[in-house]
Amino acid sequence: MEEQYEDVRLGANKYRERQPIGTAAQTQDDKDYKEPPAAPLFEPGELSSWSFYRAGIAEFVATFLFLYITVLTVMGVAKSSHKCSTVGFQGIAWAFGGHINPAVTFGLLLARKLSLTRAVFYMIMQCLGAICGAAVVKSFQKTQYERLGGGANTISSGYSKTGGLGAEIVGTFVLVYTVFSATDAKRNARDSHVPILAPLPIGFAVFVVHLATIPITGTGINPARSLGAALIYNKDQAWDDHWIFWVGPLIGAALAALYHQIVIRAIPFKSK
Amino acid sequence: MEEQYEDVRLGANKYRERQPIGTAAQTQDDKDYKEPPAAPLFEPGELSSWSFYRAGIAEFVATFLFLYITVLTVMGVAKSSHKCSTVGFQGIAWAFGGHINPAVTFGLLLARKLSLTRAVFYMIMQCLGAICGAAVVKSFQKTQYERLGGGANTISSGYSKTGGLGAEIVGTFVLVYTVFSATDAKRNARDSHVPILAPLPIGFAVFVVHLATIPITGTGINPARSLGAALIYNKDQAWDDHWIFWVGPLIGAALAALYHQIVIRAIPFKSK
Amino acid sequence: MEEQYEDVRLGANKYRERQPIGTAAQTQDDKDYKEPPAAPLFEPGELSSWSFYRAGIAEFVATFLFLYITVLTVMGVAKSSHKCSTVGFQGIAWAFGGHINPAVTFGLLLARKLSLTRAVFYMIMQCLGAICGAAVVKSFQKTQYERLGGGANTISSGYSKTGGLGAEIVGTFVLVYTVFSATDAKRNARDSHVPILAPLPIGFAVFVVHLATIPITGTGINPARSLGAALIYNKDQAWDDHWIFWVGPLIGAALAALYHQIVIRAIPFKSK
Amino acid sequence: MEEQYEDVRLGANKYRERQPIGTAAQTQDDKDYKEPPAAPLFEPGELSSWSFYRAGIAEFVATFLFLYITVLTVMGVAKSSHKCSTVGFQGIAWAFGGHINPAVTFGLLLARKLSLTRAVFYMIMQCLGAICGAAVVKSFQKTQYERLGGGANTISSGYSKTGGLGAEIVGTFVLVYTVFSATDAKRNARDSHVPILAPLPIGFAVFVVHLATIPITGTGINPARSLGAALIYNKDQAWDDHWIFWVGPLIGAALAALYHQIVIRAIPFKSK
Repeated sequence: MEEQYEDVRLGANKYRERQPIGTAAQTQDDKDYKEPPAAPLFEPGELSSWSFYRAGIAEFVATFLFLYITVLTVMGVAKSSHKCSTVGFQGIAWAFGGHINPAVTFGLLLARKLSLTRAVFYMIMQCLGAICGAAVVKSFQKTQYERLGGGANTISSGYSKTGGLGAEIVGTFVLVYTVFSATDAKRNARDSHVPILAPLPIGFAVFVVHLATIPITGTGINPARSLGAALIYNKDQAWDDHWIFWVGPLIGAALAALYHQIVIRAIPFKSK
Repeated sequence: MEEQYEDVRLGANKYRERQPIGTAAQTQDDKDYKEPPAAPLFEPGELSSWSFYRAGIAEFVATFLFLYITVLTVMGVAKSSHKCSTVGFQGIAWAFGGHINPAVTFGLLLARKLSLTRAVFYMIMQCLGAICGAAVVKSFQKTQYERLGGGANTISSGYSKTGGLGAEIVGTFVLVYTVFSATDAKRNARDSHVPILAPLPIGFAVFVVHLATIPITGTGINPARSLGAALIYNKDQAWDDHWIFWVGPLIGAALAALYHQIVIRAIPFKSK
Repeated sequence: MEEQYEDVRLGANKYRERQPIGTAAQTQDDKDYKEPPAAPLFEPGELSSWSFYRAGIAEFVATFLFLYITVLTVMGVAKSSHKCSTVGFQGIAWAFGGHINPAVTFGLLLARKLSLTRAVFYMIMQCLGAICGAAVVKSFQKTQYERLGGGANTISSGYSKTGGLGAEIVGTFVLVYTVFSATDAKRNARDSHVPILAPLPIGFAVFVVHLATIPITGTGINPARSLGAALIYNKDQAWDDHWIFWVGPLIGAALAALYHQIVIRAIPFKSK
Repeated sequence: MEEQYEDVRLGANKYRERQPIGTAAQTQDDKDYKEPPAAPLFEPGELSSWSFYRAGIAEFVATFLFLYITVLTVMGVAKSSHKCSTVGFQGIAWAFGGHINPAVTFGLLLARKLSLTRAVFYMIMQCLGAICGAAVVKSFQKTQYERLGGGANTISSGYSKTGGLGAEIVGTFVLVYTVFSATDAKRNARDSHVPILAPLPIGFAVFVVHLATIPITGTGINPARSLGAALIYNKDQAWDDHWIFWVGPLIGAALAALYHQIVIRAIPFKSK
């Protein structure tokens, strides 16, 4: 099973169990990584553990800083810098202990990587962090904030709602799939350089999606970010298409989870 | 043999079997990586394996997303962003399970890393993915797509067909050689951090080639990308020099495979 | 304890001691990394060791080069390049054997990673290096240096002192927290790729903070850099708000040390 | 000794042999990396080994491609792209099996990492590769090449020869020191991720130096690159200050080798 996965990812020709390119160290049987069991939807004791609340605080702080930095950058500098800011922070967000994105949390929930309780709690903390981050930036320079739109996501003129929804779905698909891919890579590497290396492809994915999608929707692909900016900016134009920045990312995340499980990891054919 | 290879790559002076700079851990005999046998040209059972089709689907999806993002970026933003987009996606393409480039697949076929069947199937799926990716972008904004040339590759005025062909050959040489180099590195490292680390130098190579070659041909170095853009754009100017974007990359890939085998890895002198 | 830390960082659901995503290799008991004991505030013999002075020289050289490159870049090229320069050098500063930043040194002192003697000596050498670096640049082109402000930090018009102080606190918080995070990651990875990998997220953090904070204060987050530039430029406007570039970074560093110890690493609940 | 080195690099407080931050895995005694013996100046049999000539060919090809890409980028695109091109290629040059820079080769010769014979041969091949690379670009578009100066290095108006020489010395110091640092890191890491990871800080160093030095000299820090561009451009202004682009880089490389050996690695106090 693990071998077939390698095969797909590297494109090596492994039908007859030949040794693929450069995967010698990864497929050694003495590593025997075991798939962790699926997380239960509810865990009775979870709500009374300090670990649960610490994780929530980390989500709040990371998303707060994410909005603080992103909105400040949108206000003060050119649009291209906004992309860089998003990339950079997304890159270090995992080091900060945060998903910072309800779509990512949703994707990991569907793949049964965390419980429903935890997923809901994370999403709430992400939204609260995003709202506070945008609010602090507004408090610095209220006039400029209003004039520049406060980083709120809207469908650009010349694009349809369908196009905007499609762009959010594809963009979030790329992001969440990359998160899955980075997470799996860790499994195979004998020494999982998790917090340092994974951010790089995730950051690349975010960057690439922003380059493509900013002209269409300003690039949401993160409902907490869209909500925080919309709530603090609070004008009609930010609320009109707001549903797109929840529906699009959640559909994209679900498709990514599905694609990863069915095509790349080939769960249905698992028999080991 | 492996030692001589190290020698060349690091420039250390190893003629008398002295220990080279920093390669202590790599040349330990207890690692004994074995060169995998060359892939056969045809494998009877391959066509009935799910692994074979999954790989093809992955090529399709990765190349689809590659064209979707690249063409969208060319349309919506400045030229410099186009380079970044290409780099970024090329960087995460291996994580998506895709070569996304018939020239890369061709180079790996020549080095006998995958079977002819698989190589042909990959190339077909790459071309189909590229065509669909460009088509989706055209469906978003048809007018702008036509006006901006849809990301199709042509020889810029002021440059000859020979110059354009030469630029495509050199550019693809750098890309495919870097893929070989990244693949080999994995062999030497005891823990092959394949999917996460390899994309970095590959991404750098793509970026550098784009900086140099965009003024000449718009930078093809990927026949699937050139075909998808040309077919959806479908004007005479995109078809006139189209052969250059197949012949150039395939020659460049073949030269890279040759250079890697003869000079860097010194296959002819292998006697171990 | 170590497990709970993993939990928070990766967002995995680990309440019932289930195996988290991709951390198999990290939490093996046979690695048993031991927290080093806290550094004493004073060590009698330290002042007579060559190691102590070598470290100081390294701080001087690294900070000298940091100012040399940063101020030269601010003078000769556009503002956006300044950010890149800062990132790039911060990225390689650890390889040069330097913290290059009194706020970083202060944060590590609070976390008891180095002695008070050493921290004070490092900060002095950092300030001297910064002054010399700025002085060399001034000697190259005195007229241009004066005209362009010599890279000195000031509060931009339109922002209050409180806003500037807040921006310096948040910016240094992100930087110092990332240093802690990169340092901890090394603990968990079995092979600590310290000098090569850690700079990447630290560089991202610096970049992101610069994008957000340059319009407000020019981005200090490094008292030695602010002091060196102010002293060589030596005009009233560089001195008026100078306290902000010491108080802000030191508060931000202290908060980061606190957040890291309490929330992420959960020291108060340590009982192992 | 190895421990003291760690100490300096990480700034940890290790006077009393306490375990430093995150270096547990690196200082294990069971790794016992042994410093390779110094390379002899001449090795009789070296000139008749295929390995010797393969290395020379690799230097030629890598430097040829380096000039091809760099000069093409200088001609076709904006100055800022030139920096990126240099960085990117320098980043992948080691993977191509090339130092591509006589100053780097000179620094490694001084540190006795390769023989004099080999160093001289490498430098000759680097110069030949650089000349051919620049010549190919000139053949593509002769008029534009002449008009844009062909990427030749000169002292910018407003700067003195002393300033230019100083800038070349400091710039090459940063580059060559980073090469030493990346090389040493490999020694300590148990699994030396040589060809993939080392390029990153080297690339950062090159980028940062270019940002600072382009306004002064156009940034040489590579005598082969300066020679190739000057010879193919072949106008008086490219030759007048040409000595600076040999003397500066060679002095900078020598200082870096010295600083590395004396301060960072503390060779004089080695007694183990």
